[in-house]
Amino acid sequence: MEFTINQVAGMLHGTVQGDGSEKINMLGKIQDAKKGQITFLSNPKYEQYIYTTQASAVIVKKDFQARKDITTTLILVDDPYLSFTVLLEEYHRAISFQKTGVEDPSFIGKNVSVGKNIYRGAFSYIGSNVNVGNNVKIYPHVFVGDNVTIGDNTILHANVKLYEGTKVGSDCVIHSGTVIGSDGFGFAPQEDGSYKTIPQLGNVIIEDKVTIGANTVIDCATLYGDATIIRQGVKLDNLIQVAHNVEIGKNTVIAAQTGISGSSKIGEGSVLGGQVGIAGHLVLANYTSIGAQAGIGKSIKEEGAKIIGSPAFDVKEYYKAYAVFKRLPDFNERLRELERKMMQLNGSLASEIEKMEDE
Amino acid sequence: MEFTINQVAGMLHGTVQGDGSEKINMLGKIQDAKKGQITFLSNPKYEQYIYTTQASAVIVKKDFQARKDITTTLILVDDPYLSFTVLLEEYHRAISFQKTGVEDPSFIGKNVSVGKNIYRGAFSYIGSNVNVGNNVKIYPHVFVGDNVTIGDNTILHANVKLYEGTKVGSDCVIHSGTVIGSDGFGFAPQEDGSYKTIPQLGNVIIEDKVTIGANTVIDCATLYGDATIIRQGVKLDNLIQVAHNVEIGKNTVIAAQTGISGSSKIGEGSVLGGQVGIAGHLVLANYTSIGAQAGIGKSIKEEGAKIIGSPAFDVKEYYKAYAVFKRLPDFNERLRELERKMMQLNGSLASEIEKMEDE
Amino acid sequence: MEFTINQVAGMLHGTVQGDGSEKINMLGKIQDAKKGQITFLSNPKYEQYIYTTQASAVIVKKDFQARKDITTTLILVDDPYLSFTVLLEEYHRAISFQKTGVEDPSFIGKNVSVGKNIYRGAFSYIGSNVNVGNNVKIYPHVFVGDNVTIGDNTILHANVKLYEGTKVGSDCVIHSGTVIGSDGFGFAPQEDGSYKTIPQLGNVIIEDKVTIGANTVIDCATLYGDATIIRQGVKLDNLIQVAHNVEIGKNTVIAAQTGISGSSKIGEGSVLGGQVGIAGHLVLANYTSIGAQAGIGKSIKEEGAKIIGSPAFDVKEYYKAYAVFKRLPDFNERLRELERKMMQLNGSLASEIEKMEDE
Repeated sequence: MEFTINQVAGMLHGTVQGDGSEKINMLGKIQDAKKGQITFLSNPKYEQYIYTTQASAVIVKKDFQARKDITTTLILVDDPYLSFTVLLEEYHRAISFQKTGVEDPSFIGKNVSVGKNIYRGAFSYIGSNVNVGNNVKIYPHVFVGDNVTIGDNTILHANVKLYEGTKVGSDCVIHSGTVIGSDGFGFAPQEDGSYKTIPQLGNVIIEDKVTIGANTVIDCATLYGDATIIRQGVKLDNLIQVAHNVEIGKNTVIAAQTGISGSSKIGEGSVLGGQVGIAGHLVLANYTSIGAQAGIGKSIKEEGAKIIGSPAFDVKEYYKAYAVFKRLPDFNERLRELERKMMQLNGSLASEIEKMEDE
Repeated sequence: MEFTINQVAGMLHGTVQGDGSEKINMLGKIQDAKKGQITFLSNPKYEQYIYTTQASAVIVKKDFQARKDITTTLILVDDPYLSFTVLLEEYHRAISFQKTGVEDPSFIGKNVSVGKNIYRGAFSYIGSNVNVGNNVKIYPHVFVGDNVTIGDNTILHANVKLYEGTKVGSDCVIHSGTVIGSDGFGFAPQEDGSYKTIPQLGNVIIEDKVTIGANTVIDCATLYGDATIIRQGVKLDNLIQVAHNVEIGKNTVIAAQTGISGSSKIGEGSVLGGQVGIAGHLVLANYTSIGAQAGIGKSIKEEGAKIIGSPAFDVKEYYKAYAVFKRLPDFNERLRELERKMMQLNGSLASEIEKMEDE
Repeated sequence: MEFTINQVAGMLHGTVQGDGSEKINMLGKIQDAKKGQITFLSNPKYEQYIYTTQASAVIVKKDFQARKDITTTLILVDDPYLSFTVLLEEYHRAISFQKTGVEDPSFIGKNVSVGKNIYRGAFSYIGSNVNVGNNVKIYPHVFVGDNVTIGDNTILHANVKLYEGTKVGSDCVIHSGTVIGSDGFGFAPQEDGSYKTIPQLGNVIIEDKVTIGANTVIDCATLYGDATIIRQGVKLDNLIQVAHNVEIGKNTVIAAQTGISGSSKIGEGSVLGGQVGIAGHLVLANYTSIGAQAGIGKSIKEEGAKIIGSPAFDVKEYYKAYAVFKRLPDFNERLRELERKMMQLNGSLASEIEKMEDE
């Protein structure tokens, strides 16, 4: 990926000030960008660096007024930060999709349909009756079980494991070590204290534009025909536990190490902090916001609730209660002091009354 | 796997009402089962579906009285739900053990003894001096280190990693990404602030009928000859941490993301919720029940304790205390009010006494 | 690895008492060591075993006085435990580095430079432009992305995944299933409620002598040129989450299942318990000690702080407050009782005053 500064300026609808013919092939930060790189100036506190940067080009606001000499080429735009993120994305897309073809050895089962322009890394495994869309990238050590379908433009990083029957939509990214479709945790207690495994026959459905971090686990649904469902646009971080028959609503974002127990439904547009625990069979309304380390034991009916604590309740109330919690030892002293005074008072009053009655 | 309805009825000791010669090859839910599938009716609220279901057969209670015409074939049994779970299990067993043979390429070391009817998936790795029982299923990307033994009928899903010397019993199921036998977390502090690694030379012993979820980690014991032990019938969920020298008692069940620190012993028949943390060197009595997100810092001597909180104590006491915790700000107000009144009272009383004494 | 007792005594600068020509090839515990093994006696309560042990040799303190007949050979040293750990380490080193050579099939990209005496297990994958030092051990199913560098003597256990651009120092050990360099969790909210992925272009730098447990995840930094940094001597346990742009100071030790959010900096020489959660963009001073399950929401400026709770504060203060928390229901009763008495007192006082005024 190499463009001239003029070409980049064109992509960004910007104006070049300086030599636009130089080539750039990399993005960098203004403090340490080197020749051949492009960077941006958005926050005024970094302005000093524009006079010394080695970058071949800097994207700046179109009303930028240099206070010293500038040797780098400028690209003048409306919003330098936004323009830079556009370049970042283009660059990322170019990198993400540059791998194509098949590395040997790799395994592919019977009756597999594969789209155009895909990458299958060495030691990747695709079972039978699998359907893979166009532009899909399957990195080394990925396992795709039988009867799986994978939509267009989806990236499965090294070592993703999709159990039999999993359905992954288009434009998804799944990071290394994530397991999708493992057995739900279902066991029936027996009279002798042992447990019998309840067979887990459902699957997992991941809709489009879902991103899943590394070493996360999503269990399959229990019954045949049922699915654990991750709706469109959901973003899951690393090391998350999603149990059997859970449903996570559209565009919900969940931070690392959170766990959702069996059959719970999380509403759309929700934001869950890290290390949150959600009990089973709950229904959480849309736009719920849950603070880190919270424990959710009850369904939430009202949309837009903001909660924390274990068990969780309103976030403002929690912090007020916690502020008092921190002073509880002092509290204890105050209570004891009051009890002492009360006893004294009762005593004084009694003796005064006695005195009065004696008089 | 395909049976006639008559054959299935025979397995279930049931009676056929309708055409028993039709073939079924799949289980389904009564709401959406299709031709070729069998389902069941147990909960009366689903009765409506029996009149419209496309299922080839429905398992019903033997005293079932249809209130409308029924087109599907019925199998009459004592307990439809129980009968269905029997089928589920048979089906699951049939699926689980249908894979056999060796896929290429796979790796096998020296001096390996392998039982009958096993499956070794592509890219699976078996080290040297390994002993594998009958009917064992080793999925793709599984790593079996040197000197490992694996009992009959055990299933290692894609990407399970067994370090050198691990012993896995019979009838176990271990899900994808789980690591067994990694080094315990042992480091000796040095005078310069750095840490020296204490070599971890023990192993892990998994007894029979143990099920372990995905991406769980079980560390090996520290000393040669010692083992981290998971007793018969234990069920571990996903993303669990089991440190060096831990022992988990028979038939204990542990939910996802729980962590057990080094050398702790969990009694048999216990139930641990998700995200529980257990400190090191503790002994927990049999039949302990620990609520989600609890933190256990002390041994538990009494059998059957039910605890929660961090640090954990009796679950009923915890919820009572937490109910007050939520009202602590109000509490604070009440305490302040009492202090104000007490001061007033003291004042009034003093002035009354003064007055009395003046008189 | 087989030595005579005399050779071992030489390594330990000890004196042999008994037959020093016997060969030993294994370490064991005094209770159950067998012929051919060496063990040690340090704790007096194990003295009884020295008279019955089958071990070929026992390391004892040089002033040890046997009270009964001893059949095993003794090695007399200054500090038996220390001597034994020296042997443990030697043994461990011998085992760890015994594997060399290349197992087939394995994958190696273009322009890879590989040191001497390395091990590349079957199904290991090394991308292009990779630099691997001397004595490096790359176990089966390891994935090494493009442009990665790995220092001398580093061990990557089965299934470690290093994303493109990761730098791992010398003398590091990384356990199975750990993922390094996965995308940071960065998403920009859009007006329609969806999220746009912010490309993650930085990398991860692991300095020398770092040990990382199994199934841990370390995300890459966001911007090109930035890195998530794990400093020299850091020890990370299993299932830990380290988000983008985090920096962990030298010799810091972190227990299992802890999570550190984006851009936070942990000082050197710190000790973090298990299941700790740290919010984003914080700076924690050196030598911070954080108790298990704590939640850290603020930066810590003072070195050597010891904190716990969620949100965390001073560990002594926390336990004092928690002791009162456990008695909160009783507290509630006491407060109510005080309020009742106060009302009574106010009543009595008022009536007394009334009486006095009536008189």
